[in-house]
Amino acid sequence: MNGQRNISLVLEYDGTHYHGWQCQPNAITLQEVFQRSVEKILDHPVKIYAAGRTDTGVHAFGQVINFRTEKAIDLSSIVKGLNSLLPEDIRIKNAREVDDSFHARYSAKSKSYIYCIATSRYHSPFHVRYSWHIPYVVNVSLMNESIKEIIGAHDFSSFKKKNEMYKKHERQVLRAGVRRRGDFIYIFIEATGFLRYMVRNIVGTLVLVGEGKITKEDFIAILQSRDRVNAGPTAPPQGLFLRRIKY
Amino acid sequence: MNGQRNISLVLEYDGTHYHGWQCQPNAITLQEVFQRSVEKILDHPVKIYAAGRTDTGVHAFGQVINFRTEKAIDLSSIVKGLNSLLPEDIRIKNAREVDDSFHARYSAKSKSYIYCIATSRYHSPFHVRYSWHIPYVVNVSLMNESIKEIIGAHDFSSFKKKNEMYKKHERQVLRAGVRRRGDFIYIFIEATGFLRYMVRNIVGTLVLVGEGKITKEDFIAILQSRDRVNAGPTAPPQGLFLRRIKY
Repeated sequence: MNGQRNISLVLEYDGTHYHGWQCQPNAITLQEVFQRSVEKILDHPVKIYAAGRTDTGVHAFGQVINFRTEKAIDLSSIVKGLNSLLPEDIRIKNAREVDDSFHARYSAKSKSYIYCIATSRYHSPFHVRYSWHIPYVVNVSLMNESIKEIIGAHDFSSFKKKNEMYKKHERQVLRAGVRRRGDFIYIFIEATGFLRYMVRNIVGTLVLVGEGKITKEDFIAILQSRDRVNAGPTAPPQGLFLRRIKY
Repeated sequence: MNGQRNISLVLEYDGTHYHGWQCQPNAITLQEVFQRSVEKILDHPVKIYAAGRTDTGVHAFGQVINFRTEKAIDLSSIVKGLNSLLPEDIRIKNAREVDDSFHARYSAKSKSYIYCIATSRYHSPFHVRYSWHIPYVVNVSLMNESIKEIIGAHDFSSFKKKNEMYKKHERQVLRAGVRRRGDFIYIFIEATGFLRYMVRNIVGTLVLVGEGKITKEDFIAILQSRDRVNAGPTAPPQGLFLRRIKY
């Protein structure tokens, strides 16, 4: 990669209108829209590496990507150029030039996600695209106690996407918590990596705990069972935000 | 209106996808969508009176409407029924039965609007539908000093919509203020009534004050001139929220 610059960008996006990050046939994806804009600015094909492949309808405050170019274009021109080309539901927050060895996905030390639940009596039109509506009382402190059980290295097979294959189902959770703020409940998880649907399946199962349908001990048993059929339903995508990637 | 019940509802809506409140040919309006749902539930035609006729793209936290029915349907069934029929960008917050004399528009003692400006470097995809983006420094305290000049009874011809005709251009402003909160500037106006575009034209002119392009004295002179050509540009609709109607 001699003479090539390695550029990394931080992106914020509203995933409502996209079929997730990654390119797929017959559906508009974030990667496709983003890549088209980058190639228009650089006037050559690029390969985009992204830290997290967010699913359909999932949002991001801090997606990180990188790509290579030989062009001498300065970073602020890349940011300005992309923000004027991209649709308004995708924004570049900042740009930096990184070591040749930097890879948005493989260099990441941790990723964090936030899941947002709205507990108001009716689902506000201003929050409907960004939260799961649960308009009845749930036990947030019990949910918080339960989620602490996932901290550390665990096999998360119970919380993976059905029929999704992995070589290894162990992931290391660094921090996790549930807290209420006004009419909202926020579920936070930071880990070295995630299985697909892992956050949403943990959230769906935690809500069962909060509702009193299962106990904290049941939650632990589900985690330990390593079998997806035991966990709760997958929480809907619009409450999920890729929050931050640490390097 | 013997034997007829007079029902009043409070509505919250995201106006992004509507051509304003009031029915008009060849465009989807909030009134049309709302009225269709009410008539489906009551199974008879209704006439809907609304407190504020919000323009295209304008939002509401607390629009108030009323209609009449002879049906014995209880209020909570109306709320539940409408919230399941209506699209998710319109929600009923509550319902009450009011005196026969109550009229959502004519009985209102005051209305208040909030206008939201986002000052962050880039316009967040999560705020783009709900704010005007002004990513440079404006003098908020000078804007706040200036807006205090509209409090009281004034002829607001300078801030009306071009070519809009009224019998009387005087309106009584009860409270008004501008304040910063984090990356946002909020402009608040409560008045006994508003001319069309009045809030957005006041906001557009106040921003000129904040930018230092005109002085507070210029703002006062514009108000006193009673001529629309002197005021600043109309602020875009997506930052405007009908906040509350007082009776």
